[in-house]
Amino acid sequence: MRNALLAAALAAALAAAPAHAAETRIPAAALEQAAQLRERALADDTGWKIAESLTTEIGPRLAGSEADARAVAWAQAKFRELGFDRVWTEPVTFPKWERRSESAAVVGAHAQPLAITALGGSPGGTVQAQVARFADLAALEAAPEGSLAGKIAFVDFQMQAARDGSGYRDGGAVRSRGPSAAIRKGAIGFLMRSAGTDNHRVPHTGITRYDEGLAPVPAAALSIPDADQLARLAARGPVTVRLALDCGWDGRYTSQNVIGEITGRSRPKEVVLIGAHLDSWDLGTGAVDDAAGIGITLAAARLIGRMPRRPARSIRVVAYANEEQGLHGGRAYAAEHAADIALHQLAAESDFGAGRIYAFDTGAPAHARAATAQIAQALAPLGIEYAPGQGSPGPDIIPLAAKGATWAWLAQDGSDYFHLHHTADDTLDKIDPAALAQNVAAYAVFAYLAAEAEGDFGSSAKD
Amino acid sequence: MRNALLAAALAAALAAAPAHAAETRIPAAALEQAAQLRERALADDTGWKIAESLTTEIGPRLAGSEADARAVAWAQAKFRELGFDRVWTEPVTFPKWERRSESAAVVGAHAQPLAITALGGSPGGTVQAQVARFADLAALEAAPEGSLAGKIAFVDFQMQAARDGSGYRDGGAVRSRGPSAAIRKGAIGFLMRSAGTDNHRVPHTGITRYDEGLAPVPAAALSIPDADQLARLAARGPVTVRLALDCGWDGRYTSQNVIGEITGRSRPKEVVLIGAHLDSWDLGTGAVDDAAGIGITLAAARLIGRMPRRPARSIRVVAYANEEQGLHGGRAYAAEHAADIALHQLAAESDFGAGRIYAFDTGAPAHARAATAQIAQALAPLGIEYAPGQGSPGPDIIPLAAKGATWAWLAQDGSDYFHLHHTADDTLDKIDPAALAQNVAAYAVFAYLAAEAEGDFGSSAKD
Repeated sequence: MRNALLAAALAAALAAAPAHAAETRIPAAALEQAAQLRERALADDTGWKIAESLTTEIGPRLAGSEADARAVAWAQAKFRELGFDRVWTEPVTFPKWERRSESAAVVGAHAQPLAITALGGSPGGTVQAQVARFADLAALEAAPEGSLAGKIAFVDFQMQAARDGSGYRDGGAVRSRGPSAAIRKGAIGFLMRSAGTDNHRVPHTGITRYDEGLAPVPAAALSIPDADQLARLAARGPVTVRLALDCGWDGRYTSQNVIGEITGRSRPKEVVLIGAHLDSWDLGTGAVDDAAGIGITLAAARLIGRMPRRPARSIRVVAYANEEQGLHGGRAYAAEHAADIALHQLAAESDFGAGRIYAFDTGAPAHARAATAQIAQALAPLGIEYAPGQGSPGPDIIPLAAKGATWAWLAQDGSDYFHLHHTADDTLDKIDPAALAQNVAAYAVFAYLAAEAEGDFGSSAKD
Repeated sequence: MRNALLAAALAAALAAAPAHAAETRIPAAALEQAAQLRERALADDTGWKIAESLTTEIGPRLAGSEADARAVAWAQAKFRELGFDRVWTEPVTFPKWERRSESAAVVGAHAQPLAITALGGSPGGTVQAQVARFADLAALEAAPEGSLAGKIAFVDFQMQAARDGSGYRDGGAVRSRGPSAAIRKGAIGFLMRSAGTDNHRVPHTGITRYDEGLAPVPAAALSIPDADQLARLAARGPVTVRLALDCGWDGRYTSQNVIGEITGRSRPKEVVLIGAHLDSWDLGTGAVDDAAGIGITLAAARLIGRMPRRPARSIRVVAYANEEQGLHGGRAYAAEHAADIALHQLAAESDFGAGRIYAFDTGAPAHARAATAQIAQALAPLGIEYAPGQGSPGPDIIPLAAKGATWAWLAQDGSDYFHLHHTADDTLDKIDPAALAQNVAAYAVFAYLAAEAEGDFGSSAKD
């Protein structure tokens, strides 16, 4: 997800950056090559095949699980199979969270099961208590201190679908801030209407965090129909729910960022960074989140690697470890490469599903705006508009951008993304192969042109 | 579901029926009343409120469960609340099947969970074995004897969506006949692609039966995406699946058909029979299957009951017990009322979801065809066509029709029905209130006109 506040901060920083003498330009020959690359990509199904392989052979790959290790091995083998020049891994260590079992039910006169899933980071525990319903997070936060003593808080906020995913700002806030707010009011458990836009019995998980000093309580999301149901029951009178979670943190785990590179012919140490995250939540097979991004970026780099000659700069693809629980892979990459920020020309992550890309921008300063516009022009035949001022870095790029790397933004249509996001329904059948190929084409064109640009895109290490 | 073979048999029987002297006709005054009734019904939300009440307050109501008893009490109270003249119950006894827990997983190199649900009637048990995939039931039936020894059979047949639900004939056959076919070939477990048309992680349950003399093995349905996944894995090489079911038959249970009647003013012993089934599968809240039918038929009768005067005949509404596991309520009703077949003028069940009604017919013989056409004409403003020769009795009417009662057929649009049928996704949000009101209007018009008809519809006890 895009981080609008960070984007604003970066824009302010860029405005204060020193002026460059030379304007960055993309040579005409590269633009001609890019047009051919674009057409080859549209006719190529490698991206879909990669997503098919990851979701089928590995399936769900929760960070720290047995499948995490299988996914790392899969990624190394896949990079090699696709002909990358260099393949390596970099360690990523994080706390390990496990989901073992979970259930919930209305008890009493209207006894019935409820479809729920624990939020990532929730402790285990069984609570049975009356439910206190709140229409949104603000209503919960406005409840009197102590008013939820012995109760389960239920935040019944329905997020809205939008092409740019903007509804997730409020929906995701319920998940990240709701449990702590509930604890402050005395609640012994937390339920939320899933941060989702579907109408299926598939609750949406996702990480939550408990503020320092609070004793965590079990926290779970109801599927949308179950939230409807609980709201209807609550409107009839007091409702008691039993929530039973067996899950929690269990030590630390070291996974790997898996990295492949198409080595540049003349400036190999300078890299155009693309990638996606390798981990997924455990409920689905992580198809739109984010096997799609893995397929898109690996396939794009592979197409560039099969051109008659290598681009000037290297194309580096990172399959990030554990994005879902706190951008652990992105943070580790940024820490490991802090000394090389200026070598990262542009950095982009594909992590918003498998919908068509509709807009493009970079965070480049003035001297590289013309080059950004040139890339946008090469993307236009794919139905992509140049949208300066609207973009921001992808999740795993945020830590790198915070250190001074310039981001690129290839905005995917996320109208359906939150039907599937973090649910059991995130499976391969939800990926449209034609839309995926459009993404591959966009990433291939963008990465190739950035790698062929004469002049830089403004990345420089910040203090 | 409609039973085409039975319909053909009934048509043959009707052709041999004795001719009636007098042609049945509907008086003009009744047709005028029906037009007003139709408009009142379209503006009335009682049907939706009934479905809301049943799905919310009772929720899932598996035959024989604690919720079965609550549903019976709910139905009695609801009939009374809606002003029915008589409310009573008739016992229905059947074997009780319970689902306690269920899980499945691919084991080995591609280890991952699979979303499954036990078929109703399956025994419990845990089996772990290699999967043998068959494209359809015929392929399974053609497998050599003994060829599945020690294996789990997987029938990967995808049923097709259709307005009239005709795809269920082949899809349902996999469920009803597949397990026995698998056992005959030596299989120790049975998996099928759900008899459904959605693409969600919600497997479709439903009753199965094991042929006499066979030792039942655990049988379950995979959700459609999970069947896709297992098919992809099977195409890569041998796949081992672990299937663990805790479920099975456990004694007998006596539930009730709950019956309400709007008593006719002049021929009260003659009844127009409408109804739906009160039970549901346990995974969803039984909204389209069949709270919708309960709402439609109770609301239709209530509207007739609120007219300035009662119709000539009685309108009887039956909320049938345990349709799902073998038409137990319908069989019990037919047995109980075997002596009164000729008093049942027309009998219809609403049990195909909440989609709009698009066609109408009855199984009436020649002397009541004109009256059937008159009813059809009164239904035409609702977008319903007269479709002689295409209908058949609803499930719980089959036993009564077999004894000689004349059925009526109000065909609902089932294009989406098998997205939801027997899954966790069968919840209230899937009911379109406007479509439901159209159903109420159709049932009200049909039942009222049948109750006002001068002359009969040909029901007579068969030997």
